[in-house]
Amino acid sequence: MDMGASGAKTGGVGMLMRALRSSDREDVLAMLVACGAFNEEEVRAALEILDSFEFTLLGAEVEGKLAGYVCLDRIALTQSTWHVYWLCVHPAMQRRGIGAALIEHGADFARRRGGERLVLETSGRPDYEGARRFYEKAGFQVVGRIADYYRAGDDCIYYCKLIV
Amino acid sequence: MDMGASGAKTGGVGMLMRALRSSDREDVLAMLVACGAFNEEEVRAALEILDSFEFTLLGAEVEGKLAGYVCLDRIALTQSTWHVYWLCVHPAMQRRGIGAALIEHGADFARRRGGERLVLETSGRPDYEGARRFYEKAGFQVVGRIADYYRAGDDCIYYCKLIV
Repeated sequence: MDMGASGAKTGGVGMLMRALRSSDREDVLAMLVACGAFNEEEVRAALEILDSFEFTLLGAEVEGKLAGYVCLDRIALTQSTWHVYWLCVHPAMQRRGIGAALIEHGADFARRRGGERLVLETSGRPDYEGARRFYEKAGFQVVGRIADYYRAGDDCIYYCKLIV
Repeated sequence: MDMGASGAKTGGVGMLMRALRSSDREDVLAMLVACGAFNEEEVRAALEILDSFEFTLLGAEVEGKLAGYVCLDRIALTQSTWHVYWLCVHPAMQRRGIGAALIEHGADFARRRGGERLVLETSGRPDYEGARRFYEKAGFQVVGRIADYYRAGDDCIYYCKLIV
């Protein structure tokens, strides 16, 4: 797969986009824990995905250090729909456009392989309001909602973004 | 896991509910092809799931012959949400309540393990209208829709059914 590194500048931050490597595992674990959005089971699931290397894993490097990553892949039995499974930016590096750049880089990656839309699921909890606002600003639209999906009081919100 | 056989009578048909076995593979393949709802890629995916035995697979037997099956499992990172991945009844055995009995049996199975809701995805295509009517009659409600999800003109409809 073509996951070659490419330079990007967003919000004044010099970013290098590249595929994740096994040696990123420690940095990924640190940012998953530090960002506070994921519970223990979710961190474990994110690491399992990382270790399996069955999905597309794209990282953003800033000043030689991994600042964030996105995990996505085409959904089986669909022709052009890609699922964004994880997006994480180290809290010390947030609000610099890194998340948006990762979404754009992931969208480019998918588009070059025939992708026409990205879908993702996130929580409807009040502490995810920042995440939902981020996705809406990045062009995602709410396409569904399931009450109490994750647990009581924790709804699932379905989002979709056209990338054609 | 407790997937013991249990008797059930619906619409006058004597049904035996039991876990699927490896020896059911040929019957499952025959009904997936015969029912006409699944394309080649979907049939292959359904068989991969069957062969992996990673999911819960429950079958309905009528007069000693496998008449249909349902594949479901708890969704990772959720506390009580189960996904119905496949439901198939041999076309020669449809309209006898076997599909509804399989959904009920799957719901009982999930409920005994803490399940509180079933979710599933199906196509918005006109030839799936019968399937959608079936799910709605079985108590599923539409909770979302993504246009062109499977391919151009083939939307995904998200359904959810409370089982508490």
